[in-house]
Formats: sequence, structure tokens, C-alpha cells
Amino acid sequence: MSNAIAHVPVQRILGAARDDFVDDLAVEEPLEIQLEHAGQRRSVSITMRTPGHDQELALGFLWTEGILRSLEDLRQVRSVSQSPCRTNLVRVALQDHVAVDLDRLERHFYTTSSCGVCGKASIQALRAQSAFPPWPEGSPPFFPASLLHSLPARLRAAQEVFATTGGLHASALFDRSGECLVLREDVGRHNALDKVIGRALLDGQLPLRDRLLLVSGRASFELVQKASMAGLPFLGAVGAPSSLAVDLAREAGMTLVGWLRDGRFNVYTGAWRLTCIGRPHVPSA
Amino acid sequence: MSNAIAHVPVQRILGAARDDFVDDLAVEEPLEIQLEHAGQRRSVSITMRTPGHDQELALGFLWTEGILRSLEDLRQVRSVSQSPCRTNLVRVALQDHVAVDLDRLERHFYTTSSCGVCGKASIQALRAQSAFPPWPEGSPPFFPASLLHSLPARLRAAQEVFATTGGLHASALFDRSGECLVLREDVGRHNALDKVIGRALLDGQLPLRDRLLLVSGRASFELVQKASMAGLPFLGAVGAPSSLAVDLAREAGMTLVGWLRDGRFNVYTGAWRLTCIGRPHVPSA
Repeated sequence: MSNAIAHVPVQRILGAARDDFVDDLAVEEPLEIQLEHAGQRRSVSITMRTPGHDQELALGFLWTEGILRSLEDLRQVRSVSQSPCRTNLVRVALQDHVAVDLDRLERHFYTTSSCGVCGKASIQALRAQSAFPPWPEGSPPFFPASLLHSLPARLRAAQEVFATTGGLHASALFDRSGECLVLREDVGRHNALDKVIGRALLDGQLPLRDRLLLVSGRASFELVQKASMAGLPFLGAVGAPSSLAVDLAREAGMTLVGWLRDGRFNVYTGAWRLTCIGRPHVPSA
Repeated sequence: MSNAIAHVPVQRILGAARDDFVDDLAVEEPLEIQLEHAGQRRSVSITMRTPGHDQELALGFLWTEGILRSLEDLRQVRSVSQSPCRTNLVRVALQDHVAVDLDRLERHFYTTSSCGVCGKASIQALRAQSAFPPWPEGSPPFFPASLLHSLPARLRAAQEVFATTGGLHASALFDRSGECLVLREDVGRHNALDKVIGRALLDGQLPLRDRLLLVSGRASFELVQKASMAGLPFLGAVGAPSSLAVDLAREAGMTLVGWLRDGRFNVYTGAWRLTCIGRPHVPSA
């Protein structure tokens, strides 16, 4: 991932002492995603991302936006070089039979709701859009608490770039044995997850009905939305979730866990899916 | 800031032990920003934000996008209630004389460059757009290192919501004596900074030529871009910057400092502006 790291001269200050060295920074560059369909070409997104796995990013983005609904909808995906710069353009060509609703990409679906812009409208719009049904309450898969406790260390062991730059978000997919199947890192947390989902799409793995997803930072609405679009039953975050992330995870029947680190975690939704957890501790009077 | 916190039931797991309690979460809700100009109304943005200081957010956003260039361009800003939901709409009315380039809001300015989409094109497009000239090399203001070391503790002391939710980014403005002039918190780091800049605009404080900005997380291209649009000479981040953030800060003549915590920091650009820093330490042979 050499494209993902830049080396810059820096002065390191400790108190009043100075030390000159070369620091490793996470690279941030814009990526344009263009869609080709029925003889037309249209730019659908420009995102600031860390170079690497760009085609996965483009495919994961199109999947989680509801544009791409099956690997069979895809005719071709290619990175296009634009001399003299880096390759910062991916073109995704869809089969002619695909019905494309490009208005979805405008991200203005909120305003079509009768109550205007609110979180409830966002969640309703999303439910209509998802390729997979929500998980019923009480449904499998079930995961032991010990498996969850083991994930942060496995994530750290698998991370390639964070250790040197400290500037990247990670998103990783695990199976039920705790094996890390795919890890992606990016300056944008949504990009890291899009790359994971794009990889799964290419591997014919969607929906991810038996997998666990762990993200290195906080769990926003957008991350739960993307996880839901991939059919995931479990999202764990090293940091805190937002209120709307919790609302959406509940609607989707997804298990959402936050503050997953140091042998502890908080369960915000879907607690039935976690096994080997004791009863509430009742302090003696 | 009661709108900024939601209380949700949660199971806290420590090892295999369980404890039921009510957690405080950062609220995340969509906000729509509409622009009114010359008899027309247009939706220009929907952003996921933490409720509170919404008008500042809208104004700061329009300023840092180059749409609003002076407080005199503003006719009215108002929050619009949409029963039965929260107030998630801000309308900004511009004076008729203002020349509005709404295409800027499409964020597709990258593609107009001859070399396509790359970081260099982004920086060039931005420079053309900024209301303030870049800082010349060697220019004041100058800040002592001891002032920088004091900022993280001052930020923590001023933070209202983070301590309870752990889910918010902070953005704070300091004067040269180290006093915290304004602090804003949000689930989105760009929103927190937009709120700070919108407040400064309303107070007639732009450009912020003598101020220091501190952000709680990492320094992305977008944060440096917004700081540059506000005329700031200094941006400090508690976390790491990205490569493009460093490139843009250098172009703008801004001092960019990262990893500002625990009595240390790294200087990525504009080191001349920092005083009372010793010579490089040369280890004895």
C-alpha cells in the first residue's frame, strides 16, 4: 500500500525541545466515480479517499447507494489513468438491462417524506431501498461474547497503515471463528467500509448474513446504513454510536455494539444475538 | 445543549458480566440548508449533524463554500419548524445584488482542471475561490510553543457534550492569550468547524487573522480548506493530518500542527510562526 503513505519532513516538539524527522502521513486524494449506462456516462461521486482498492470502493459505494443490486448488473469496472497525475478515476459500466435510478445519488431522498427532513424519514427511505429484509427479533446468527472481546486485537494485528500514520479509519470483516477475512483502511470511514463491501460483492459474498463487521472509530448513521445494505447482522465499533445509528440498527434488526475494547463493550441493539453473557450484576445491599 | 444528547438503554459487558444502564449518545439528525435568492428557493445541502447552532452551521457552510462573501450579502437566516418533527431546516436568504454561483455547491470543481481529478487541481480551484490571500512565508502572527501546549487542556475544560457521549468532534477558537472564544461540537467534524466560522461571521470577526483553531480529531483536507476560507493562520489537531491537508496548508501559508497533546506536537507547515522552540537536539556521539 505504498500509495497510501506520504513521507513529509516535520519538526517534532517536546516541551521546548525540537527534533527534525520524516513523518508518515495517510494519503488523501479525490476519486471520481463515473457510471456508464445505455450509451451515457455520468459522474456520480467525488470522494476524498486514500488510494488503493479504488474499484472496490466504487463498487461498494454503488451497492450501498442501491444503484448496483447484483454482480450480474455489472458489465465492467476499470481505473482510468489521467497523465500526469495519479489514477483518480474509476468507470463502472452497467448492463443495459439494469434500471438505474440516478436520483438516488442526489441524496435528497429525505425531502420526499411528508414530514420533511428528519431521522425517521431517513430510516423509512432506507428501508424501501435495501436489497435485503430486516432481521427478525431473536433471529440467528448468534455470537459468543468471547468472540467479540477478541476482535480488537485481531483488527490491530491486521492493520497495515494505521500503525505508521495514525491517520486512517479501518473496517474489517470477520467470520464466526474470529478470522479476519478482509481489512481496508482509508482517511474516510465510509470509504473503508465501501471497500470492504465492494470486495465482498466481487467475491460473490453478498449478503454477508454470517459475518461480523468491526470499525475502528465511531458508528455513525452512514456506517449502519452501509452495513445494513450489505445484509450484515453485526456491527461493532471501537468508539461510540450516534443516536440515529442506534435507531437504524434497531429497525434493521442488527446487533450494534460500541466501545468494543479492553475486554468490554456496550450493546445498543440486538442483544439477543450475543451468548455467554451473564445476568445483570445486583450489588449486595 | 439538551437536543444534542439522547438517552438510550444499554447493556454494558465487562468480560462475561453484564450491567444494565442508560447511556448518553450524541444526537445525529439530518439538516437541510435552503438558499433563497432573487425569488428562487433551492436546497443546497443535507448534512448529518448534531442539533444546535443550526443557523451558524448553515452560514459557516455557505461561507466556506464561497457562496457567502460578506455579512452584507445576507438578508435573513431562519430555522423553519416542520411539525411533528424537530426543526431540521434552515433557510438563508441572500440580498438580490449578490452574484451566486450555485454550481460551486455541486463540488465538481475538480473536474474543470485540465489534468482531471487530483489533489493539485483541488488546491488550485480552492485558491481561486478564497476571499483572503494566502499568508506570505515568514509573516506574523507568531505564537509561542507554550501557548500551543496549553490548548488541549483548555479545549477539554470547555467541552460540554463529549465527556458524556464520547461521540462528538470539537472545534474551538482561541485568542493569543489562550482564551477559548467559541467552541462547537458535532458528530461531523466539518459541521463543528462550520458552526465556529458561522458564529465568527455573525460577530463580524472574519477574517480570523489573529486566532488559533484547535480540532479534536484528525486534520483532513476539508478542515484545512474551511480554516483557509476563514483566513486562519493556525490549525492545530489532536490527531494526525492527511497528506493533502499538509499540501493545502503549505499553499495557504498556514501553520499546521498535529498530535497536539501531552506537551508535544508535530509541525507540518509554517514553522516560522512558532517561537520559543529550541534547536534540533543533536545526540552526543
